Amino acid sequence: MSRFWSNIVSELTPYVPGEQPKLPGLIKLNTNENPYGPSPQVLAAINAHAGDELRLYPDPSGSALKQTLADYHSLTPAQVFVGNGSDEVLALAFMALLKHEAPLLFPDISYSFYPVYCKLYGIDYRTVPLDDAMQIRAADYAGPCGAIIFPNPNAPTGIGLPLDGVEAMLRAHPDAVVVVDEAYVDFGADSAASLVDRYPNLLVVQTLSKSRSLAGLRVGFALGHPDLIEALERVKNSFNSYPLDRLALVGAAAAFDDEAYFQQTRQAVIASREQLTEELVSLGFAVLPSQANFIFARHLQHDAAQLAAGLRARSIIVRHFTAARINQYLRISIGTPAECAALVQALRALLQ
Amino acid sequence: MSRFWSNIVSELTPYVPGEQPKLPGLIKLNTNENPYGPSPQVLAAINAHAGDELRLYPDPSGSALKQTLADYHSLTPAQVFVGNGSDEVLALAFMALLKHEAPLLFPDISYSFYPVYCKLYGIDYRTVPLDDAMQIRAADYAGPCGAIIFPNPNAPTGIGLPLDGVEAMLRAHPDAVVVVDEAYVDFGADSAASLVDRYPNLLVVQTLSKSRSLAGLRVGFALGHPDLIEALERVKNSFNSYPLDRLALVGAAAAFDDEAYFQQTRQAVIASREQLTEELVSLGFAVLPSQANFIFARHLQHDAAQLAAGLRARSIIVRHFTAARINQYLRISIGTPAECAALVQALRALLQ
Repeated sequence: MSRFWSNIVSELTPYVPGEQPKLPGLIKLNTNENPYGPSPQVLAAINAHAGDELRLYPDPSGSALKQTLADYHSLTPAQVFVGNGSDEVLALAFMALLKHEAPLLFPDISYSFYPVYCKLYGIDYRTVPLDDAMQIRAADYAGPCGAIIFPNPNAPTGIGLPLDGVEAMLRAHPDAVVVVDEAYVDFGADSAASLVDRYPNLLVVQTLSKSRSLAGLRVGFALGHPDLIEALERVKNSFNSYPLDRLALVGAAAAFDDEAYFQQTRQAVIASREQLTEELVSLGFAVLPSQANFIFARHLQHDAAQLAAGLRARSIIVRHFTAARINQYLRISIGTPAECAALVQALRALLQ
Repeated sequence: MSRFWSNIVSELTPYVPGEQPKLPGLIKLNTNENPYGPSPQVLAAINAHAGDELRLYPDPSGSALKQTLADYHSLTPAQVFVGNGSDEVLALAFMALLKHEAPLLFPDISYSFYPVYCKLYGIDYRTVPLDDAMQIRAADYAGPCGAIIFPNPNAPTGIGLPLDGVEAMLRAHPDAVVVVDEAYVDFGADSAASLVDRYPNLLVVQTLSKSRSLAGLRVGFALGHPDLIEALERVKNSFNSYPLDRLALVGAAAAFDDEAYFQQTRQAVIASREQLTEELVSLGFAVLPSQANFIFARHLQHDAAQLAAGLRARSIIVRHFTAARINQYLRISIGTPAECAALVQALRALLQ
């Protein structure tokens, strides 16, 4: 606390991202990165633009990338917003679209950045408990609210909500924005992007950090009715004109031009997830049915914090949350087949 | 206006950045970019990191870049904050440090993003007129205030405030943060970075967009007392954990490792500025004494808007502001010697 701080500063409880240690030989299964690198076309595009032109500002509106994303999702550029990772897109959406008199609703077990944004912007919110199977149930969001946000598939559970559930929420709240945070959608859930043309209250948020292997490049986007996109643009242009640098703009567009690589790598992650799930079950874990690039698992006899510590001692890091109801779970990112095998081997040793 | 918007959205008047047209043969003197490309060391660093590692998140705290900047300015990393261009650093500073009960003060003619930030965060502000010579006068900021911000050198005038003026403000307001926005400082003004250790109320903001030729990479930073830096970190970590991508982090650090290139290019810009100033004076312009990489000039007989339009017809774009008191000025970025010569030739034709 300092006399120089604005009032809000001391009240904040900043988000704590997963750690990014730089230890040699570490098996890093803690921040849901893709085990495969970005498409060679992305790297070629970046290299082609890493030159003299970096002296010039980027296109502040990111028009070329918007066009690529619009084409990919059969929408128009006016239905697309681009930002510095989906975290920035979400931050702007909280400010532009989720602050109303009635409370914002989101799941009690969900992305832990949501309450941080609410604190930052003074947004009243109410959490809605997952059901006993740790699922989002659309009917539980039926009450009055200012807006709704949830990840689909949810994090850290990995469980997806089928599109009829999403539509039920959209229809129940025609005057409230429903944000579907689809960071992990490409690993097996159904995207609500196909609903954008029909629901003016729908905002779909996606990222290139997971299925496009570009966590290091910081690109996210939103799809929605032009009115919702305009709100995001207005706030963004009152905050930072150029949040996407030239290399991120061209690299991101190139990622959507290489569909074959995208399909190949996401299928590889899905296959590894299914195999790892089977192996963990055989080791005595209960594993939630995941549609993401991670699994959320608890061992029926062993303490999660102790398992996480044991893995760390073997140079494998996974994420362990201390919040009630999930403090016996481990969130494990899907690695390469070799990394998954090393994890299973380490767990087998720990569980003996 | 839409029923889905938060209240703040319709009240915003977003900042309008200088246009970024992509016309072949255009001479672009409108957004104060550096006419010289980035250091070859920057490009080499980017190329070395444009690979598989982009699948991984960047270091959220930007520790390596902070260390580089701390070493460069003889400070500690706890005195350094890094962000997505100085616009994002400023946006976070407005929220974290400049919102108080008493009004924020800034010059009436200054960076036009300041009132936009104030609107975004609901910050009460009062503008302080420049004196008759279009200079900031420290004594005019003596009254009660919540905080102060000003560019040094000022934009769009290009006129610098000597460090004794900066110190006078810092001493007059020991309980108020004074932000010195030094986007253009490397082209001839004195940086307040040397005062950071002595004034806990000083925040210096700089960018790599101008003197480091990296407008396209989006990197800015702040230097100040660890308490001020902590406020920025708290707000940043409640907004977006990783605003700097991996390529920006390594490219920025490399820029500070190539001091020879920095000195050579900034001296070339300064030399061109002095020559262009002489030539414009000989064409009948009054030119404010600039310490920046642009000049602010008005012709004693010709209308500024007409001159800007005439230049545009000749594929040269400069910036013309319509605000009172400066609507007869043109802000002209310093280009290469060839670009400056083309500008002079075009003006000569227009003024005949």
